[in-house]
Amino acid sequence: METKEEDNVVLIRLFKDDDIMECLKMACEKHDIETAIIIMGIGQVKDIQLGYFRSKGDYVKQNFPQPYEIISLSGNVSLQKDGYNFHIHACLGDIVKKTIGGHLIDAKVTAMAEIGLMKTKIKIIRRQDPETGLMAMHFD
Amino acid sequence: METKEEDNVVLIRLFKDDDIMECLKMACEKHDIETAIIIMGIGQVKDIQLGYFRSKGDYVKQNFPQPYEIISLSGNVSLQKDGYNFHIHACLGDIVKKTIGGHLIDAKVTAMAEIGLMKTKIKIIRRQDPETGLMAMHFD
Amino acid sequence: METKEEDNVVLIRLFKDDDIMECLKMACEKHDIETAIIIMGIGQVKDIQLGYFRSKGDYVKQNFPQPYEIISLSGNVSLQKDGYNFHIHACLGDIVKKTIGGHLIDAKVTAMAEIGLMKTKIKIIRRQDPETGLMAMHFD
Repeated sequence: METKEEDNVVLIRLFKDDDIMECLKMACEKHDIETAIIIMGIGQVKDIQLGYFRSKGDYVKQNFPQPYEIISLSGNVSLQKDGYNFHIHACLGDIVKKTIGGHLIDAKVTAMAEIGLMKTKIKIIRRQDPETGLMAMHFD
Repeated sequence: METKEEDNVVLIRLFKDDDIMECLKMACEKHDIETAIIIMGIGQVKDIQLGYFRSKGDYVKQNFPQPYEIISLSGNVSLQKDGYNFHIHACLGDIVKKTIGGHLIDAKVTAMAEIGLMKTKIKIIRRQDPETGLMAMHFD
Repeated sequence: METKEEDNVVLIRLFKDDDIMECLKMACEKHDIETAIIIMGIGQVKDIQLGYFRSKGDYVKQNFPQPYEIISLSGNVSLQKDGYNFHIHACLGDIVKKTIGGHLIDAKVTAMAEIGLMKTKIKIIRRQDPETGLMAMHFD
């Protein structure tokens, strides 16, 4: 992993076999991120796990072992009392350009990946929503 | 809806049954937005209407009542003489992670959604393009 | 093409028959961009070429002549010794809202397109990676 920060932007360059979520965590620690918005996400990954929320306690996880290009990443990172919370959705494309998408749980870089974060001073507090069981975003 | 602004960034957190377009309009009014770029869009929605431009006067609308994760939102918001203009394209993913996408006309939040806007001082003027009938972006 | 810059944001409005990559290059030159992140990409294009990296020297290109809405663009632009390097991934949607995605090599605007760039002072150096043959991102 290589990272670089200027003003409120952090760019992260991931190498082969890097774990996306682990590297994001390390980059956030290195650059003292409290809250950041993901403004760029491209590259190629494999061993992907995507999630889909069906109902409280019923979160549908699906594995995609084969390589997919990262078409986009959207979401945010926020420091909570127990560590970083990542809420990231990914669009991924295969060799025939067909796309899939969902909540990004896990992925490993095949060749390279490039991620951009924009720091913001907005403090995000994640609290479990009683109705859905999801970690809802709050600002107070 | 909860919203928070710091520097030029506005984060919007939508709750169950919130209407995406209505809430975006309210958030824009609350935060005095003239022009903003959508830098984040994730969550889950239902009762979705997406559009595709075929030719002048022939805009193909399609309804997707079932829930889809918002994989990405891209586009912009601009204040015009007759109110806000939203030009937003959405990528959405279903339970088997298959994605769809198009011009976002309408959608209602199922569980939650998180949207990020970046204010810019660039003034966007929307004028109908005689050839396509679309509301073209101008800067003068 | 019309363009406008305020602070670190450049908005680009493309017209019918504009070539996306040529216009991006012209906009980067006009606005003295060294490095920029693509923070918005919507519109409609045709004569599209998308790429997928399979292995060193085996880059799978595929043509999509018919019109597709641009659902998202993600990536970056960086000035190198031999001119601009564009690393952009696109998600595209057809008339039935089915999406495709990959590395954007080429596309021509059908009706209009709107692209947003955010300048950053981070210097990106592209060097060929011996293992993959890809132009890897470096910061030194």
